[in-house]
Amino acid sequence: MDKKRPLILITNDDGYAAKGLRKLVALMRTLGDVVLISTDEVMSAKSHSCSIRDRLYVSLVHEEDGFKEYRCNGTPVDCLKLAYQKLCGRQPDLVVSGINHGMNAATTVVYSGTIAAVVEACMNGIDAIGYSLFSLDPDADFDHLDTAILEITKKVLNEGLPKGVCLNVNFPKRSEEPMKGIKVCRQAACRWVEYFEEKYDEQGRQYYDLDGTFESDDILPDTDLWALQHNYISVVPTCFDWTVHSQIESMSAFEGLRIT
Amino acid sequence: MDKKRPLILITNDDGYAAKGLRKLVALMRTLGDVVLISTDEVMSAKSHSCSIRDRLYVSLVHEEDGFKEYRCNGTPVDCLKLAYQKLCGRQPDLVVSGINHGMNAATTVVYSGTIAAVVEACMNGIDAIGYSLFSLDPDADFDHLDTAILEITKKVLNEGLPKGVCLNVNFPKRSEEPMKGIKVCRQAACRWVEYFEEKYDEQGRQYYDLDGTFESDDILPDTDLWALQHNYISVVPTCFDWTVHSQIESMSAFEGLRIT
Repeated sequence: MDKKRPLILITNDDGYAAKGLRKLVALMRTLGDVVLISTDEVMSAKSHSCSIRDRLYVSLVHEEDGFKEYRCNGTPVDCLKLAYQKLCGRQPDLVVSGINHGMNAATTVVYSGTIAAVVEACMNGIDAIGYSLFSLDPDADFDHLDTAILEITKKVLNEGLPKGVCLNVNFPKRSEEPMKGIKVCRQAACRWVEYFEEKYDEQGRQYYDLDGTFESDDILPDTDLWALQHNYISVVPTCFDWTVHSQIESMSAFEGLRIT
Repeated sequence: MDKKRPLILITNDDGYAAKGLRKLVALMRTLGDVVLISTDEVMSAKSHSCSIRDRLYVSLVHEEDGFKEYRCNGTPVDCLKLAYQKLCGRQPDLVVSGINHGMNAATTVVYSGTIAAVVEACMNGIDAIGYSLFSLDPDADFDHLDTAILEITKKVLNEGLPKGVCLNVNFPKRSEEPMKGIKVCRQAACRWVEYFEEKYDEQGRQYYDLDGTFESDDILPDTDLWALQHNYISVVPTCFDWTVHSQIESMSAFEGLRIT
């Protein structure tokens, strides 16, 4: 591959055939050389799961000038790890993940394989961006995102990101109104409220089907959920430091506890 | 179960037979009524993975006064969700997860099923603590932890935790010196440096085995890694907000990008 063009590593969690992934590949190929590694199967909600006990098979399924496509039986994080260490030939200049079918805003980031790959890249010092669309439709329209994705990606390629920071970018679903712009904002607090449907299998054994709806009472103007609901693109600077720094001092009473 | 005693929900990611889990159950039963739900299989490195496409089977394997034990084929997060919604009868007063065989300090939290269950509880407004020992030995000695675990747990049961904050507690491996005390500290930055061993299966097909070592250049005195290396117990106030709040303003230039 051409050393002068940036090397962009792409993955996702919706599997190799996802329309959002193919859109992202097409866009990134206008900006650099691309290595794509995608999962054999849909890996939504696999989070930061890694295959530490399974065999990882990977195959090169397509190659042309400036583009290589691999497929792997692992999780998005497995794919990312394998690709940047074994398949890229050199450290990628950027990792992009998505375009996810379904939003990864608010607290839903913790479940997302798409965002886990972004966080994993960031942990390894590689600039990384996750792109997600607020629509689960497998045939969703992604064409309204072209300019925004190219502009955000070019800015990161040109200027880099601060150490330990990656970007979680979510787009509103296409509507009749054009998108209003970009909001740099914080991750809203939310939770999935599950309902476990009780079903019976062919042998009459009871099992549960996990499904749920998404609830939030934190849709304030500084949040990603507010941005998406108001037809803005949300950009959340995201990290892998889960410490609540503001609580370290106020919790110092734990240090006085008896331990023996 | 007795309404006056606290209801403590326990899970882990090392599977139902783990010695650390059995120790935690024994300790918690001195403090309250206990519901245990553990995974059929070892679920290390399953992170916040959920079974949104698989059938979840759960069975009650043991019941006696003040104690119920369930087993489930899902991930730790599946277990947690199922248990507090379907099996506990009422909202648990506390979730405890572990005692993990192997530390979940520094950035390794992102991979841990044990800590994912804690974070999931926290997202749902339940106080939660993860306990982990800096030893992967399946027969590790946990007896030096009894007092500290009881004292930390009692403090949380009595006083509660701030909203959106859970505790990630790691213990040093047993050594000849007694542990020095508790440090409330921040999660160190670290990364797993993988080596992918190339192997061949019975059909001659190449695959990769994922293994790795843990590296950090962030072992400063305010970190959990420093605490563990110096024979302290580390307590990290932990959250599910991954926003880098300090970067929101400095990244406002993204808001000026062209989007159409």
